[in-house]
Amino acid sequence: MSLLIKNGTIVTATSEFTGDLYIEGETIRQIGFNLKVDADRIVDATGRYILPGGVDEHVHYGSFGGRLFETAEAAAVGGTTTIVDFAPQEKDVPLLDAIRRQAAKAEHISSVDFAFHAVIMDPKESVFEEVRHLPEVGVATLKLFMAYKGTSFYCDDEAILNAMMRAKEAGVTMMVHAENADIITILTNHYLSQGKTAPVYHYHARPPIAEEEATGRAIALAKAADCPLFVVHVSAKEAMEAIREAHSQGWPIFGETCTHYLTLTTDYLDKPVFEGAKYICSPPLRPQEHVDAMWHAVREGWLTAVGSDHCALDGGYEGAKKKGTNFSNVPNGCPGVQDRLALLWTYGVCTGKITRQKFVELFATNPAKVVGLPGKGELRVGADADIVIFDPDWKGVITNKDSLHGIDYEPFEGFEIQGRPEQVYLRGRLVAQKGVFVGERGKGQWQKCRPYGLCYDYYHK
Amino acid sequence: MSLLIKNGTIVTATSEFTGDLYIEGETIRQIGFNLKVDADRIVDATGRYILPGGVDEHVHYGSFGGRLFETAEAAAVGGTTTIVDFAPQEKDVPLLDAIRRQAAKAEHISSVDFAFHAVIMDPKESVFEEVRHLPEVGVATLKLFMAYKGTSFYCDDEAILNAMMRAKEAGVTMMVHAENADIITILTNHYLSQGKTAPVYHYHARPPIAEEEATGRAIALAKAADCPLFVVHVSAKEAMEAIREAHSQGWPIFGETCTHYLTLTTDYLDKPVFEGAKYICSPPLRPQEHVDAMWHAVREGWLTAVGSDHCALDGGYEGAKKKGTNFSNVPNGCPGVQDRLALLWTYGVCTGKITRQKFVELFATNPAKVVGLPGKGELRVGADADIVIFDPDWKGVITNKDSLHGIDYEPFEGFEIQGRPEQVYLRGRLVAQKGVFVGERGKGQWQKCRPYGLCYDYYHK
Amino acid sequence: MSLLIKNGTIVTATSEFTGDLYIEGETIRQIGFNLKVDADRIVDATGRYILPGGVDEHVHYGSFGGRLFETAEAAAVGGTTTIVDFAPQEKDVPLLDAIRRQAAKAEHISSVDFAFHAVIMDPKESVFEEVRHLPEVGVATLKLFMAYKGTSFYCDDEAILNAMMRAKEAGVTMMVHAENADIITILTNHYLSQGKTAPVYHYHARPPIAEEEATGRAIALAKAADCPLFVVHVSAKEAMEAIREAHSQGWPIFGETCTHYLTLTTDYLDKPVFEGAKYICSPPLRPQEHVDAMWHAVREGWLTAVGSDHCALDGGYEGAKKKGTNFSNVPNGCPGVQDRLALLWTYGVCTGKITRQKFVELFATNPAKVVGLPGKGELRVGADADIVIFDPDWKGVITNKDSLHGIDYEPFEGFEIQGRPEQVYLRGRLVAQKGVFVGERGKGQWQKCRPYGLCYDYYHK
Amino acid sequence: MSLLIKNGTIVTATSEFTGDLYIEGETIRQIGFNLKVDADRIVDATGRYILPGGVDEHVHYGSFGGRLFETAEAAAVGGTTTIVDFAPQEKDVPLLDAIRRQAAKAEHISSVDFAFHAVIMDPKESVFEEVRHLPEVGVATLKLFMAYKGTSFYCDDEAILNAMMRAKEAGVTMMVHAENADIITILTNHYLSQGKTAPVYHYHARPPIAEEEATGRAIALAKAADCPLFVVHVSAKEAMEAIREAHSQGWPIFGETCTHYLTLTTDYLDKPVFEGAKYICSPPLRPQEHVDAMWHAVREGWLTAVGSDHCALDGGYEGAKKKGTNFSNVPNGCPGVQDRLALLWTYGVCTGKITRQKFVELFATNPAKVVGLPGKGELRVGADADIVIFDPDWKGVITNKDSLHGIDYEPFEGFEIQGRPEQVYLRGRLVAQKGVFVGERGKGQWQKCRPYGLCYDYYHK
Repeated sequence: MSLLIKNGTIVTATSEFTGDLYIEGETIRQIGFNLKVDADRIVDATGRYILPGGVDEHVHYGSFGGRLFETAEAAAVGGTTTIVDFAPQEKDVPLLDAIRRQAAKAEHISSVDFAFHAVIMDPKESVFEEVRHLPEVGVATLKLFMAYKGTSFYCDDEAILNAMMRAKEAGVTMMVHAENADIITILTNHYLSQGKTAPVYHYHARPPIAEEEATGRAIALAKAADCPLFVVHVSAKEAMEAIREAHSQGWPIFGETCTHYLTLTTDYLDKPVFEGAKYICSPPLRPQEHVDAMWHAVREGWLTAVGSDHCALDGGYEGAKKKGTNFSNVPNGCPGVQDRLALLWTYGVCTGKITRQKFVELFATNPAKVVGLPGKGELRVGADADIVIFDPDWKGVITNKDSLHGIDYEPFEGFEIQGRPEQVYLRGRLVAQKGVFVGERGKGQWQKCRPYGLCYDYYHK
Repeated sequence: MSLLIKNGTIVTATSEFTGDLYIEGETIRQIGFNLKVDADRIVDATGRYILPGGVDEHVHYGSFGGRLFETAEAAAVGGTTTIVDFAPQEKDVPLLDAIRRQAAKAEHISSVDFAFHAVIMDPKESVFEEVRHLPEVGVATLKLFMAYKGTSFYCDDEAILNAMMRAKEAGVTMMVHAENADIITILTNHYLSQGKTAPVYHYHARPPIAEEEATGRAIALAKAADCPLFVVHVSAKEAMEAIREAHSQGWPIFGETCTHYLTLTTDYLDKPVFEGAKYICSPPLRPQEHVDAMWHAVREGWLTAVGSDHCALDGGYEGAKKKGTNFSNVPNGCPGVQDRLALLWTYGVCTGKITRQKFVELFATNPAKVVGLPGKGELRVGADADIVIFDPDWKGVITNKDSLHGIDYEPFEGFEIQGRPEQVYLRGRLVAQKGVFVGERGKGQWQKCRPYGLCYDYYHK
Repeated sequence: MSLLIKNGTIVTATSEFTGDLYIEGETIRQIGFNLKVDADRIVDATGRYILPGGVDEHVHYGSFGGRLFETAEAAAVGGTTTIVDFAPQEKDVPLLDAIRRQAAKAEHISSVDFAFHAVIMDPKESVFEEVRHLPEVGVATLKLFMAYKGTSFYCDDEAILNAMMRAKEAGVTMMVHAENADIITILTNHYLSQGKTAPVYHYHARPPIAEEEATGRAIALAKAADCPLFVVHVSAKEAMEAIREAHSQGWPIFGETCTHYLTLTTDYLDKPVFEGAKYICSPPLRPQEHVDAMWHAVREGWLTAVGSDHCALDGGYEGAKKKGTNFSNVPNGCPGVQDRLALLWTYGVCTGKITRQKFVELFATNPAKVVGLPGKGELRVGADADIVIFDPDWKGVITNKDSLHGIDYEPFEGFEIQGRPEQVYLRGRLVAQKGVFVGERGKGQWQKCRPYGLCYDYYHK
Repeated sequence: MSLLIKNGTIVTATSEFTGDLYIEGETIRQIGFNLKVDADRIVDATGRYILPGGVDEHVHYGSFGGRLFETAEAAAVGGTTTIVDFAPQEKDVPLLDAIRRQAAKAEHISSVDFAFHAVIMDPKESVFEEVRHLPEVGVATLKLFMAYKGTSFYCDDEAILNAMMRAKEAGVTMMVHAENADIITILTNHYLSQGKTAPVYHYHARPPIAEEEATGRAIALAKAADCPLFVVHVSAKEAMEAIREAHSQGWPIFGETCTHYLTLTTDYLDKPVFEGAKYICSPPLRPQEHVDAMWHAVREGWLTAVGSDHCALDGGYEGAKKKGTNFSNVPNGCPGVQDRLALLWTYGVCTGKITRQKFVELFATNPAKVVGLPGKGELRVGADADIVIFDPDWKGVITNKDSLHGIDYEPFEGFEIQGRPEQVYLRGRLVAQKGVFVGERGKGQWQKCRPYGLCYDYYHK
């Protein structure tokens, strides 16, 4: 099977140029000008941008209440061909087993490629000892939760530091969800005791200072352990600044933000009746000044990637979110994997906030490097043929009826969109066309991540 | 009883001038040039500086293993006439009772005036509720410990935040010992497991980052609670910078450093055999760059006061310190109340690092304001007649045989000293002369502190 | 002649207390509680604050078009008993002669005490050589202008650096007017060429960046020369931050702001018709965020003093300001010496922005120290008996008919005021009472300044 | 003519991969894996890195005393295929004519491609008006000198601001040599007057503060004009920090450093006798902490490119440098174009300070973008076939006998080198092999630069 995509504008993280892409089997074999090759299939991409298929380093399919991998077709139509999910560990289950179990949920079901972050939920010596073996099962990232005290996710500083000390020896990249659990507990009780139960108090109970504090603490622990760190879903200006500051002092400290922190504000939590519950995720949506700061940060490289933190809760609004009786017991999470490209392009590239080069970097190239997938996220010879043929002229509106995430609402409902993936290829196979999934379900493959990803660059010990 | 001190150079936090001081009973009644008053006693202070008696806002007499108030005469001969100790709470003992019990240990025994900081060691709702009543028993400061996990002192973020929310309503000033307990635990185990047991590993197990992290966290909690904060015994440059930064953003965040962080370095911990144990205190002594930063900070007002953190451990070196088998089980604490004036003057004023005005501020005026003792720390009409007649020309050397702290070693042994308190008056009574205690034991009085001290200035809610 | 002021609340830069002041001749001789002395005159100050007479380190009486020293009575009624003016040099006139000539204009005419800053307007080797002799004629400060290119005031970097190198050897404190002349020239031409002539363009043609740049440059020159620096009339947030930053790095860099930068905004320049011309001074009035930053800076000690930059232009609005045909040819300057106390107290102390202690420091104590007048600015034994008895309960409104500055408008017209100097004493003599000058004209004396003022503290070479 | 380079490791600014490059004529036509194409010539690059030919954005061939374009072969053997020189203007010569004259000196003589920066030396209205026409003659960058007062190069702030206002309208990128001329004048006179004439005083007379000040001023002017800025040859830590700070505030402020600021220190200026003169260039070589800061800056992207500032002075050491009688009259400049790749690779890549990707960015990709040459500096389809086949295993030592710069000394004499360009291609033609020039002289072509280069990205007005 071979494929020739002709005459598109090929966009990389460095530049862009007119050319042809020749794919043999699952791999990009040639990039050239007016290539003379025989191909089983030829696609004319005149007037189209050729982008690498997206890598979404932060999704929840089988984890944390999200819909399962059946709905990963939403990623495909949205131009994302690789998703990185979490493998939460149950008590007394070895870390590596937890990963294998999670992978089993995705294999033959996910329609896009997938990989995993490990998650420690049973912090003890034997589990810490497993950290160094993560790369053996194709996992090179490990996430811990500083928030959610009282749940099995929660890790105290001692656990984090123990994990870091093992992680760095094996080139595993540490990730943290950084919010101060105690501040949240106290403020939550404070607002509930005053009868302030509406979804918008989710924001007030998790103020920027809670994120700033925990981010600063995670950085301190990383310094103490001399270990690289990747802070996930950064949403607060001050947390971003703490990362920037540490990085500028020469520490290997990095972070991502997410689509919704670039496009939605606290106002959405304040929608009438209980509708704000649709937007409850953690960290919470922030006021506009934080949104502006996130754009500034991704443009300048202070944050390295943009994930979706996709979590389409089973039950959606009516069956899950709305069952909450106050802001504190609404299940957390919003879908977004399908909209990530559309939002970054429309509200980033089209407004001039980022260049097309920066878009490619944030959407595909950097996420692949962070998690350790060198064959993903880039249009280059030898890379997987994950390709988006992008029509920049199409105009539309996001609506839940076009969404494949499998729940009853769209957080970005009504957002105007400029441009769309006309065709999406996963390892050389057409899987989506003009918003419709046209591939074969379950053809996604488990991608094994390599240790010593991007956060280990320049890290010499 | 009246006293006229004539012709000295009266030094205040603002300026200095030649003049006379007239004391009636326990109070300064007149300051003037060539005063014509009858006095029971006249002292000629020509060629001498007249300084306010020192206020040491950080001592341990009855707390944390220190020798008891019998040895408070050390303060008197060193020019300090008011000491502020801690009133640790035992489990199930109400906070206010703990204070009264501690005061009972000092009354009729301490030879200098004394006051107390409250300490929560049994964090629970009923104790938090007592915080607002502290001023009723003459206590306006409350200290919590972020270090020492596993002991009864330790408070987690939730306890701190609970205390802060109550404290600010009553004008009580929050104080924290800021070191990250988990970093210390892990590093301690790390070094012990490597057989690194010498006193100098006390420093390595409590690196600056442990202090920086906890200081940053305490500041974040204070911001979340919108509560003034006073960080005690700041020793690390980065911790000081965090305080400076928060303050410069307009937050009521303050801190003190201590005499030994201005004069001793980590090298002392590294003395041969086990002698470094003499210098084990927490936070640990720091390398020279931190010492330099502390001088810079007190000079510029980034730190507000200089305490001694005096803790002359019962047993001293031979009977207490030396019983430790490794750095982690040596009891913490060093004496210093007697040397505070001498060291600040010799190594601060005489080297040009601080002016005499700044000396007065750090040694007496500011500590009194921080704890809420408006009648202390200042030479002005109406203030208590706590007075040091200081001979700037005397030269000597610190040695344990001259020390009244009641233990078998002097951390500043051999330090050359310029100047000394020729006479020290406590509320108008001569208590010390040329290094000898000449007063009557137990004449110190419990000073009741007023809420809304210095840290509440400019704080409007 | 002796005077006893009884029972007032004596306010110093450090604290406040109830007491009596006894003055003999021109000097404060005693401060005490319930003083038993005979006095020619006794004043009961119950319910009143006793403040030191103000020191205004920045006025223009005989300089730069201001009304002459006849109108210095405005200072007296406003609670300011010492003014520091400038002695501009004419071409080929030796610096020391220029000072003597200026002093001659004030002697027997000024009704408050006066001192001088030197001003170089004829930069050349012989003049630079005179700098070291300034203290011989009682001048210890030297001001240079970075703005006003094309006038005789203007000094380029070479002149500034030459002056600095001489100044520091003699303990003379360098002052600069810091605005970038070229930015102003180009922007002025730019706006005029567009027909934008209204007074508000005075602001646009002198944007904060012009002040920030020149302040940064002055600091760099001071660093190169290793010379203390005092930046006058700081108005822009970024300029203040540059001073703060340099100071925090340990450099002896200081600055003042002025009353109008704490109380008026750019909006005043935008008053209808040409009325904005009344507010044309340089640097120009700034938007509110800069005003807020100035309050923050004086409160935190990042700026050291508050002067008035009083310049009541001969001719006032009708006869001088209004003759300008566009913003660029309106004579610069606004009166303010009479209102400085009232504005700092009402809009600073009464709003809680600064304490009474800080007020005393900014209004009197620090200005005296900066210029080198140790007998001024402070209520202490041995100091000049320059005293304000202040009634904090009086309420009124600023209006030009109450002003003694001798021109036809009041920039602070209509400002509500809380409190007023009930009595003002100059060296023991009553000179003003309830807004009326009651002294004898011309009794002000030339105050000789001492070198090595406040900016030389901590400066060791 | 066609060329196939097979099996090399192709290195881009984003990643690296094994592949083949196919060149037709002067252009890269295909990049692929195991390309099956006929080619006139086939080169096996197994075990070699394929790098883009270097772009040196800062050389002096026909300008400022440098040897002429005959010696541009030094660039070729060093792996640099495009040089960007300066076109200094003589008095009364229109700017565009100056450029054409300079180009005429290079055409048919330079053996590598060349482009030009304009230089204003006759600042006046008619010249400023020409700025907008620069792109018409293929120039998109304009350099002004803040140093060298008294020469025709010097521009005051007014000239710079005038130029900036015109430049931004036409997408011309402003460049400045940022050193404060007056500080240098005064310090030079100061040292000469003390008999301090040795080359090392070149450093003392041009201290970091002189560069920091001028850089800050240039940034302020750029802010006032709202114009992008590229600061050339940044050498001082503080200057770099000022650029970083402005950039991080969102301003389009950029800078380069040069090879020698990454590899040589002030110690070289201090070589015995007068040999330090070999190293006299401006800004001067800096102490090690600045060198470290430059590496930090290029690694983090705070500085955007690394030029050589190549200036092989006609006469070299014996005939030019040594004729100076003191540090102030030694002609400025050092050669370096031949060594740029070798030094960046050996002391950057091989030490782990930068990745190979960052090397490509600094050495070729970014310089091309800054000056506006989209067909240069990158290995991609459609780009010019400027290619370096790099042998990473070669080891050698820099020595002047291998240098083609045409003078009698090598500043990097004796530096050990790892790796070397085995072959260098200019637009598809082999021009150098293993350190020997094998091309045809004068085949370099004038490259016309496009306006709105890299510094205009994200700049929206």
